[in-house]
Amino acid sequence: MHPDTHALLTLVLAGGPAAPRHALAAYPGGPAAALAAGPPLWRALGSPVQQQHQLAQPDPQRLADARKWLAQPGHHLLGLADPQLPPALRELPDPPVALFVHGDPAALWRPAIAVVGSRSPTPAGRALASRFSAAFAEAGVAVLSGLASGIDAAAHVAALDHGGCTVAVIATGPDRCYPDTHERLQARIAHHGAVVSEYPPGTAARPGQFPARNRLVAGLSLVTLVVEAAYRSGALITARLAAEAGREVCALPGSVNNPRARGCHRLIREGAALVETPQEVLALLAPGLAHALPALQNALQAPIQGGPEVTLPPALAAEPDYQCLWNALDHDPIPMDSVITRCGLTAARLSSMLLAMELAGIVVCEHGRYCRNPGFPTSTAS
Amino acid sequence: MHPDTHALLTLVLAGGPAAPRHALAAYPGGPAAALAAGPPLWRALGSPVQQQHQLAQPDPQRLADARKWLAQPGHHLLGLADPQLPPALRELPDPPVALFVHGDPAALWRPAIAVVGSRSPTPAGRALASRFSAAFAEAGVAVLSGLASGIDAAAHVAALDHGGCTVAVIATGPDRCYPDTHERLQARIAHHGAVVSEYPPGTAARPGQFPARNRLVAGLSLVTLVVEAAYRSGALITARLAAEAGREVCALPGSVNNPRARGCHRLIREGAALVETPQEVLALLAPGLAHALPALQNALQAPIQGGPEVTLPPALAAEPDYQCLWNALDHDPIPMDSVITRCGLTAARLSSMLLAMELAGIVVCEHGRYCRNPGFPTSTAS
Repeated sequence: MHPDTHALLTLVLAGGPAAPRHALAAYPGGPAAALAAGPPLWRALGSPVQQQHQLAQPDPQRLADARKWLAQPGHHLLGLADPQLPPALRELPDPPVALFVHGDPAALWRPAIAVVGSRSPTPAGRALASRFSAAFAEAGVAVLSGLASGIDAAAHVAALDHGGCTVAVIATGPDRCYPDTHERLQARIAHHGAVVSEYPPGTAARPGQFPARNRLVAGLSLVTLVVEAAYRSGALITARLAAEAGREVCALPGSVNNPRARGCHRLIREGAALVETPQEVLALLAPGLAHALPALQNALQAPIQGGPEVTLPPALAAEPDYQCLWNALDHDPIPMDSVITRCGLTAARLSSMLLAMELAGIVVCEHGRYCRNPGFPTSTAS
Repeated sequence: MHPDTHALLTLVLAGGPAAPRHALAAYPGGPAAALAAGPPLWRALGSPVQQQHQLAQPDPQRLADARKWLAQPGHHLLGLADPQLPPALRELPDPPVALFVHGDPAALWRPAIAVVGSRSPTPAGRALASRFSAAFAEAGVAVLSGLASGIDAAAHVAALDHGGCTVAVIATGPDRCYPDTHERLQARIAHHGAVVSEYPPGTAARPGQFPARNRLVAGLSLVTLVVEAAYRSGALITARLAAEAGREVCALPGSVNNPRARGCHRLIREGAALVETPQEVLALLAPGLAHALPALQNALQAPIQGGPEVTLPPALAAEPDYQCLWNALDHDPIPMDSVITRCGLTAARLSSMLLAMELAGIVVCEHGRYCRNPGFPTSTAS
């Protein structure tokens, strides 16, 4: 195990105030160097005595459990300074010290829409969560939610059933499942997207962890859609956190006879966008994408760690659809029809992928024809 | 027949551009003097030749029909300058030259909420129109609508069934009914409120008259509530005209699966208030009441035409509930309980009446006890 990974686990397990641990996780020399520097540095960064004890002597059993979990395939730990961690998370007022990821870390880089709402929706609400999430999946956008019963589960399932990518942010350790009836769903999500937690393996569900989880749901998505929510609902917390983090928030209206529309109406009155169609929600991605692009471009222009044969940045190359699209493109522009024929993907899906790649400067579109951007750094290696 | 009434009928029947007829109807010496002044004055006010012919020689048959209609009990004609015409109507960009009123002209002075929407609502929409209108009626507010099928009819019927006051603005002459299935409803409205039209007796329904009718629905109400409306619906015209006239506009949200909620959602996006309860709609009356109060106070302070024994202004004295409340009040403050016992009205109804009278300066409230305002001009006559 890499010394930095060991150090990150120690930081996560130490608990206590987050600010000193953020500083140690993002320490210029790396977390291992930060821990090796010992109590004088820790104190200087504001770590209280109790936390210093935990940093000096981490619980061996919990450490062993976490190392064991991390040793399994598809299990990852992304520290606060890890280039694989989406920069949007680092910009949060209270970022995670590290994220445990079961599945594909590249899924966190997809433009994502959080679909949240009541744990006990009406049948119509559940159907709307499915219909909207299916449309997002087909547009190539990740569907993000909290793995809860009701709206959350409907959103994840619809994204999976339509061949899309979905990300679950959970409030337990990555080896646990809450509610336990969602164990199979959690495994499916890990297989086709990612299950994400800031809690170490072995952590059970505790009430205070759900609002904390909600801030990551908000922070990892560009748009938060509330499908159905009572007047006092955890989904409203997610929506408020999303608005505070500068993300777009939208809500579906409902009949005034439906108590589970009250929370949505409350949000709309407070300024959330009233949306009626998936297309309207997708249109709300634009401002967030524009904001996220510089970071994405920086990530794409960073040295490629996988070796010279990698022509797409790792976050995209890890996704078969993007790799397929990349292979289909030439240095000479080809029309959309040819791209569709070569890739076998839908026009809607390809459009959103091409748009993202175009905005990132990897692809050039001229008169409706697409080609690799000859000026893009990584394309010279192809 | 009063010469001014004859002159007003001539102005209404003349047709043609409204501006010269407005000027003649509001002529300082009265409409009869304006007509007697002849073509030089008419020309000076911009009347075209064709209209001058009509003014000089009104159609004798139509004039006779209108006079016959006006001769019947409960039939009134209020000219643009008539003090019985609510000032809010005069403030419209395109006020009526005169209004034919079947019923009680005082009903037009009540704070009114327009309840409008689809001619073919869902059962739930119809039920909401009824529920909200019943609550408005119980709060002592007039329910205003256009006598159309669907939402309009449901609103009128609910107000009547709950002992309230309702006003129908119709797009035909006051002796006609459209749709003809609403003949009995129209008679009930005239009996318990007022049926209002700017068209002379004998005028049949014509498409262009419905948008014109809608401007009067908007202009006569302080708040316009849209219950259910398709994306392109006449109710939206009413709502826009209401907003343009500075009135409050609100709409009920609905399921995104309900096509008849689209118009409401469109309005909410354009700035209409999203409302869920009748109380929220009633709360929107406040700004309009504050704006309307000076005019109401002027009207109240005007010389009382009914004779010295009238202690309430005619608009209020004509309403049995207000007269009863006035009689129940002393010059010494009495608690709300006593007012309820003396009047036999509900606390909610009395509260809204007392609030209106308090705001108009007729009644004083001190420490929750009410009395006639000793400083109010008309109260010295009691």
